Amino acid sequence: MTEHSLWRFARALHRAINEHQFDDLAAMIDDNVEWAVYGPIDMFPFLGARHGKTAVLDVCRQIADNVRVHRYERESIILGEESASTMMRYSLTALDTNRPISLRLAQFAQFRAGRLVSMRVVVDTFDLVEQALGRAIHLPKIA
Amino acid sequence: MTEHSLWRFARALHRAINEHQFDDLAAMIDDNVEWAVYGPIDMFPFLGARHGKTAVLDVCRQIADNVRVHRYERESIILGEESASTMMRYSLTALDTNRPISLRLAQFAQFRAGRLVSMRVVVDTFDLVEQALGRAIHLPKIA
Repeated sequence: MTEHSLWRFARALHRAINEHQFDDLAAMIDDNVEWAVYGPIDMFPFLGARHGKTAVLDVCRQIADNVRVHRYERESIILGEESASTMMRYSLTALDTNRPISLRLAQFAQFRAGRLVSMRVVVDTFDLVEQALGRAIHLPKIA
Repeated sequence: MTEHSLWRFARALHRAINEHQFDDLAAMIDDNVEWAVYGPIDMFPFLGARHGKTAVLDVCRQIADNVRVHRYERESIILGEESASTMMRYSLTALDTNRPISLRLAQFAQFRAGRLVSMRVVVDTFDLVEQALGRAIHLPKIA
């Protein structure tokens, strides 16, 4: 039984973000990859949709330039044959402000022949925005 | 091959929310269920964590009192033996303001003997907040 592509991809991604070593990641990304991290792109230009290996490696470099990962915990994992979903909690530092950020997200990855062909990520973005701002946003109670 | 619990649960949940019929849902929820929908509970008191069947049915009633589901689309699905993850896009109406809301979320469900024992949901909460407010929140560009 061979190792699921998720584990190899996760190692490559974290190596890219924290060590700025992109070779392993580049080797695992399909030329026609579809990539989307849903969130406010006005504040975080490295969120949003990307198509193709060059664009995805480029956005991973932007992420690496903006955050440092200290810890992550996988709270839920479901593996398909060539797919994987994980709910994760990250402890990061935002490098521009040096602010600690604790982030919850869910990622859905699809692989083909060991390469990433699709990645979609949902982030608890309101929590992210408040932490990146360093202050609470006042909200009315609606219910 | 029996039907995966996810499909039965999804039907029961949507019947509860849109038709206020909670019997099917109640029959599928384990007494010790753990439930968490991550998001700003000050604005949306029906988000957050709940433990146990009574609390979960109660929060589903609150959700049913606050939203109406028009459409939903499963963008990604990964099924485990007694688990399931789905990335979904919902078209809702917020009943208090009559505002249309388009919502992306990821849910991770765990079943035991056909009953829900764990549900964790990550929501693109910033997008949700802006739509519920009916206006954009100004954000600085940080990167």
